[in-house]
Parts: sequence; C-alpha cells; structure tokens
Amino acid sequence: MAWAKETSAVSTDFNRIFYPESIAVVGVSADNPVSFGSLIFKALVSMQCESRLYPVNPKGGTFGDFDVYKSVEEIPDEIDFAIVSVAAPLVPETIEACRLKGAAGVEIISAGFKETGEPEGIALEEEIKKIARKGIRVIGPNCFGIYCPESGLTMAPGPDFSRESGPVAFLAQSGGMSVDFAQMGKWMGIRFSKIISFGNGADLRETELLEYLGNDPETEVIALYIEGIDNGRKFFTTLKDVAARKPVIVYKGGLSEAGNRAVTSHTASMGGSRIIWNSLLRQCNAIQVHGLQEMAQASLAFSLLPPREYKGITVVGGGGALGVSACDAAESFNLEIPTLKDDIVEEILSVLPRPGSSATNPIDSANPFVAPGAIKSTLISAARDPRVELQILTQLLYHFKSIATLSGAPSLRHVIPYKKMADAVKEAVDITDKPVIIVLPNLKQELESMEIEEVTRETRALFVERGIPVLDSLNDALRAISHVASYYKKR
Amino acid sequence: MAWAKETSAVSTDFNRIFYPESIAVVGVSADNPVSFGSLIFKALVSMQCESRLYPVNPKGGTFGDFDVYKSVEEIPDEIDFAIVSVAAPLVPETIEACRLKGAAGVEIISAGFKETGEPEGIALEEEIKKIARKGIRVIGPNCFGIYCPESGLTMAPGPDFSRESGPVAFLAQSGGMSVDFAQMGKWMGIRFSKIISFGNGADLRETELLEYLGNDPETEVIALYIEGIDNGRKFFTTLKDVAARKPVIVYKGGLSEAGNRAVTSHTASMGGSRIIWNSLLRQCNAIQVHGLQEMAQASLAFSLLPPREYKGITVVGGGGALGVSACDAAESFNLEIPTLKDDIVEEILSVLPRPGSSATNPIDSANPFVAPGAIKSTLISAARDPRVELQILTQLLYHFKSIATLSGAPSLRHVIPYKKMADAVKEAVDITDKPVIIVLPNLKQELESMEIEEVTRETRALFVERGIPVLDSLNDALRAISHVASYYKKR
Repeated sequence: MAWAKETSAVSTDFNRIFYPESIAVVGVSADNPVSFGSLIFKALVSMQCESRLYPVNPKGGTFGDFDVYKSVEEIPDEIDFAIVSVAAPLVPETIEACRLKGAAGVEIISAGFKETGEPEGIALEEEIKKIARKGIRVIGPNCFGIYCPESGLTMAPGPDFSRESGPVAFLAQSGGMSVDFAQMGKWMGIRFSKIISFGNGADLRETELLEYLGNDPETEVIALYIEGIDNGRKFFTTLKDVAARKPVIVYKGGLSEAGNRAVTSHTASMGGSRIIWNSLLRQCNAIQVHGLQEMAQASLAFSLLPPREYKGITVVGGGGALGVSACDAAESFNLEIPTLKDDIVEEILSVLPRPGSSATNPIDSANPFVAPGAIKSTLISAARDPRVELQILTQLLYHFKSIATLSGAPSLRHVIPYKKMADAVKEAVDITDKPVIIVLPNLKQELESMEIEEVTRETRALFVERGIPVLDSLNDALRAISHVASYYKKR
Repeated sequence: MAWAKETSAVSTDFNRIFYPESIAVVGVSADNPVSFGSLIFKALVSMQCESRLYPVNPKGGTFGDFDVYKSVEEIPDEIDFAIVSVAAPLVPETIEACRLKGAAGVEIISAGFKETGEPEGIALEEEIKKIARKGIRVIGPNCFGIYCPESGLTMAPGPDFSRESGPVAFLAQSGGMSVDFAQMGKWMGIRFSKIISFGNGADLRETELLEYLGNDPETEVIALYIEGIDNGRKFFTTLKDVAARKPVIVYKGGLSEAGNRAVTSHTASMGGSRIIWNSLLRQCNAIQVHGLQEMAQASLAFSLLPPREYKGITVVGGGGALGVSACDAAESFNLEIPTLKDDIVEEILSVLPRPGSSATNPIDSANPFVAPGAIKSTLISAARDPRVELQILTQLLYHFKSIATLSGAPSLRHVIPYKKMADAVKEAVDITDKPVIIVLPNLKQELESMEIEEVTRETRALFVERGIPVLDSLNDALRAISHVASYYKKR
C-alpha cells in the first residue's frame, strides 16, 4: 500500500472507522431537532448502532436520553470515530479536536467547502487536508458518510436502512445516490457490507477506498458511482487489480458536456472524456453501467447468481408478446434463446394449458394463471437442454385482479398461489442447478389497487428470502445477466 | 378507400362496431363462471357498457340478471356487434349466424386457429375469412377484442378499465399487451379513444384499422404494436399518410431471430428485417419505440405536451447526482441543458437553500424538501431564458419518510406539501407557457412503506388532473420528450 502513504502520513485503522466502539456526533442540537446533526444522531439510535454514542454541542444539556458534551475533549471515553455536522468555518477546529482525542477517522456532513467555488470554502477544505495529514482520516466534507449494517453506522439521514449485512459495497461522492441505493437495496434484496459517500473527498477517496474494499473479506461485489477522480493512473491500476478478483460495477457520471458542468458544481470534480473512460473501464474488466437502476440490478445479479458465463436462457411467461419482446432484447444483450428439442417441447406442453401455449422457447404459458406445479415441471424440463444455463420466469400478478373481482374472491391473496410459487421455483433451481430470475412487473398502479402492490412486494420478499433475484422488467433482467456473463467471460 | 374493398366486399360500419347499440356475447356459461365468455360478459356489465347485452349459450337459462338465448337467431332484437368465445370448431357457424342476423362486426376471443400451425386450425381460419368476405367484419380470432371507453366496450377480461375517453388509440395483435397498455394508461393518465387487439387478424388488420384511426375524430395519437403485417406496401403508404397528420408510435416486435420465431407461434405472422423496418419507419416519420413502457410514455407525452420541436430544457431537483445523470442522458437524446444567464441564476439562488444549491442548469435545489413557492419561482425564473422550452422537475417524495419518522409526524401527508406543489407547478406552466414534466420515482418500496406508495400515487393523480405528465425516471422523461421533439421537427 505504498501509494496510500502519500496521501496519509499514518497507517489507517479502517476497523475503528467502520466498526467503532464509540462515536462522537458533533452538532446535535436539542433546539433544532431536524438539524442534520440531530437527525443523524436519532438515526444512529433508531438503527440500534452498536457503538457508544456521545452527542456534542457547546450548549451541553441533554438530547433524548443522552447527556450532551460541550466539547469533544469533555467526552469521558476514547473516541474511535466522529460525525461532524457544524457550520463550515467550525469544521477544522472540530476535527483537530477529534484527532487530539485519538479518533481514527471522522466524517464531515457539513457543506460549504470547495464545492461552493468560493475562496473561503476552498481555504477551509485545504485546512481539513492539513489536519488529515497530521493523522486522522477524513470522509467528506459535503457527504452523507458511512453506512455499515454490521455495526449500525448509518448515513445522514438513514434511520431505517437494513441491519442485514451482505456482499455488496458501494462507493460514491454523491450522498443522495448513496441513500437511494441503500433504500433500493433494502427491498430489492441487495445486502451491503458498506456504503461510503465521500462527497468532496478531501482525504479518503475512490482509489484508497476501492483498495480497502478489494481486500475487505466482507465485500464480494463493489459498485462505484464516480463523478471525478483524484489520480487517474493510481485509480485505474487499483481498479484493474481489484476487478481481477471481485466484480467492480462502475457508473461514471458527467461524461457529457452539460454533465461535466453539473459535476463541477456538485462535488468540485472534473468529469472526463467519454471515449477514454469507456476504453479504460473495458481494459480493467470493470462493468460499466449508465444509471442507478442498472447499477442496483447488476449488483443484485452479481450477489445472487452463480459466477458463470451465461449465454443460453429460457424465457417463461404468460403472454406471447412478452416472449417476442424478450427475444428482441436478448439479442441486443448477446444472450441466446435456443430452440428446445422436440421431446422437451412435448414434455412442457403436456403440463401447460392448450390451446394458446407454446414451448419452443420462449415458453408461452398461454395465460398468467398457470399453477406452481406446472411451472416447476416446465423449468425442470427446459433445464434438461444443456444449452439452457439460466431461466427467466415472468409473473404478472396484477392479472389476478380481474379474476378476483369477477369470481368474487374476498382478497387477491385467495387467488394468487404466491407462496407455493416461490417454493416451486426454489425447488426447480435446487434440482437443476440452473438459476432462475423472476420478472415481477406491476402495470396496475392505480390508487384503488394498493392490494396488488402489497402482494407484489410480499411475493418479491418470498423469492428474495430464497436467494432468487427479482427484477421489474424483462429488459432489466437480460441486461443484468449480460453484465454477469460478460464479466466472467473476460476474467 | 379503394384497397379496403379488396379485403371486404361490403362497406364497413365502424360506428356499429365501436359504439354498438346491442351486443350478443356467445359462449357465456352459467356452469363455468370463469370461462372467457362468462368473464367478458361480467366485464361488460361491470364497465356499465351502454349497449343492450344478450348472452348466448345452447343451454339457455339465466346468467346473473340476464336471460340466456339458446342461439344468436333467438335474440329478439337487432345485433350490431357480437363477442364470440366458443370452441374453435364452432366459431364459423357462430359468426355466420351473426352475419345472417345483420351484425356489422364480430370479435373472436377463441384460440385454436392459424397460430397452432395445425392443418385443422388453418382450415378453420380460412372459413372465417370466407364468411367475413360475405359481409361481416371480424376482429380476431385469438384476440382480446375491443376496448372503447365511450361506449363501455371492454377487452377480455377488462372489468375495471377507465371509462374516461381521450386522444390515444392503440392497435395490436397481442391481447396481453393491449390489456397491459389499458391498465397502465389508467394510472399514468393516458386516456384512450379505442384499443383494438386483433390477434391473428383474419379479416380486419393493421392497415385498415390504422386508416380508420387516422380519420377518427376522437383519435389524435396512434400507437401500434406490430408482430407481422399482411401487405407491406399498403401498410407503409397508409402509415406515411396518417403520420403526416397524427403522431403514430410504432413498436415492432420480432426483429431478432428468436423474436421472429416467437412471433410465428404467437400470432402466426412473419417478423421482418430490422434494417428494413427501421428505415421504413424513419421514412414515414413514425415514432419507433422498443418496448411497452417506452410506448406508453411516448403516448402520454404526445397527448399532454404542446406540439413543439423541443430542444432546450431545464432539470430541477434536489440532489446533484440526479442533475449529472440527467445531463448525460439528455445528450444522448439530442436535448440541450443550456447554462442559464447570471441574472437568472442569481434570481433562482435567492429562493433556494444555501449552501448546497446550484442554478446554472441543471438546477440543484440542494435537498428534496424545497417548498412549492420556491419551486414555482424557480420554474418561472428559468423560463425567462428563451432557450428553455420545457422543464423537468424531480420530486423525491420518499425522502420525506425519514423526516416524518424522525420528527414524529403522524403521517407522511403531514410533511409532504403535495397538493400545493401540484398547484404551484400548474401555475408556473400557465404563467410561462412552457410545459413541465414531473419525474416521480419511488425508490423506497419495502412492504412497511406502503404509505409512500399511496402518497406517490395521489401525487401523480393531482398532476395528471392538471394535465401535467408524470414519469418514473429522468431517463424516461428525456426519451419521451425526444420523441415529441423529433416528430414535430420532421413533420
């Protein structure tokens, strides 16, 4: 880690930063319960953070059940980590106090630094850098900080993120995107090891954090949102090294002229040329994505699918146009939908409704109401073809609404066999050793149909619990598979 | 309409088909309340269809409050239209009976014809064609039929489609896609004049129906999903003619090899070459889309945005990364995000939170909690720049959840000023005469957060009521605008 020494004169104890035994939160205010400092403190409490928490405000007093300390010095305990949300001009003295108190790191939520473009903000950021070099690692300023489900450390303001840990790490300058990704991960079934939003990145930045995550045993998949980088050569050397061991998904923002301008006012970074970035990412075998949704979907796929070079797939669902769309999209993602052999076709057709079904692949189940047993048989039969490496099953639950309405069922839950379906699919996956991705769109989103949304979410959770990825659309599923296939092919 | 005579020996009374005074529904079964015939009859009742309804089944008896007639002949009334859902071999004699009864048209829901690839099915479809030529227009077979909100005619099974009419017509072979589009339109704010799912298209097909819609005063925007066409030359002549007067959005399925195969087993059509289709659609100034979502979003944009060649836009929202993403995407859709002039920037910054906001465009409101009044001022100020022709406003309502949780508000509705926001945006649109598109993603979809979904849907409805289009993502919004811009530029 020779180069890391260039940015920091002392060795970094990342363990004390991500899993702190004690945290000072500077800027908590009993007078202003919705200040960022107050919100993040309450969020840590709400997340049942494992650390000992020390709120700090010059006025002292109490905050909820906690005594407020008038300064960092007054805290009667060692401090591993500090969260700072005070006015920008007060930040340097605050982090210097944290350093003298022996904290390994600090995250600075406050804004008003380099990103303002004003001389005062730029000077304050330089002061932060100087203090960092004396021996404290800094996340931020102008960031939302760290989320680490294992320790209960959470981003500002993230009071209800998941406490379940998992294999995906995310690294971004943008706090908004970090919060959004954490939120999406919770219901999509993406479980995180760490999310780090580092804002202006005055000290700790993309390269050093990427190297840390590359060596972090809790992290198996790394996602990055990058606006600008500090040192291109080091970054790409590190990226290539890490991507050879773990999939690294990169969303580079600011590749257009206007995007570059937006990057400058957002986190004071320089954007960069589209052609250079595309080419360097390809050389590193990083997985390039072009939006938050695509990044989240790829992260889910990498964390749940076995690491294989997928090529041949089946597409199973009720409705012929769905299959047509899937085929057209598969071609553009370099996936194949092989024609199944006659004996397999016959086997599948024997369990599907006639007329109206078709099983050459795509497999059209004629209607969306086919029972779990028939779906299980279909998946098992199709998997007998050695060219089939993965299967996509579309479930259009919203169509059951008409059935429920017209048959007078008391609730949608009476007509949708969603629990049995989740079990049936899991059994098919276990028997065949070929993964299934569920596509679960909800195209019926009027206010009167909230029950469909509830059942859709319950269904998603049932599949996710069984380790089966669920996506909203066929196109999303195909794109996510293609990222996994392409990464393992090149590695 | 010289060529129409080639497919039909008699003139077609489309009015009696779309706005029938009386309908026979053949295949209703009191013994099987979930048969397609029973379901569509109940759906017509549930939709409060304006027509006199006559259920038909050889067993007679009653169905709900209705007397069932043993045959079409027995119905003691004239018949304008019939819906047929009987076993395939019984279809020819049924539609012949409808013809003799004087019906102008019939839709055949039954499957088991040409799409099976079996000689029996092919022969039955030929019989249908022969009867049609004697003087009755046929929709189908293997279709879901017609949805016409004005008359209350609905597709099988569509018991809860909207009865509000509007400018968008949709034409497809696929019944599943037609139902999906009708469902999506209901909550997205797309109002339909007619949806016609024509399945195998034994008689009435894309070309003749497109010409009808081109002349239909109720229809201003036409969307088509095409698997295969019957007569390419006639189709493209008609398309070019209609597209010169009304926007025609075309989603061509089956352009890949596997997609072509799927098309064949779905509606017995031939797919076609990607290059030829792309080029012909461009020549006709048809708007080519590549999926149902994109088609729906384009339909919404065409039906609500003033017909202009949009180029310059603003992107307004809380969160810098959002703006960066928007800029990158705008470039790929040939839209511009012009840098606003200093006086406009200053005017906007005077109403937005500091520090953290930025107004050069994209306009970053620093956080997602900016009040309606400030948003209205921002939109009005930005519109002063003559290069700004349209504005996109992102509303991240799900972020209010943290605020509500941490401030102890009893409900999300207490902290989100969504009604005032809808009014404020509408006022800004009226004052500036520059449309606004709302981007309203919900990235917080866990089961415990159903309230966010409810408020999001209520918010969508408030904007839609005010004629302001709402889309789920920035990318979707930019793509929809680019379709509108490109169409009016070429026309």
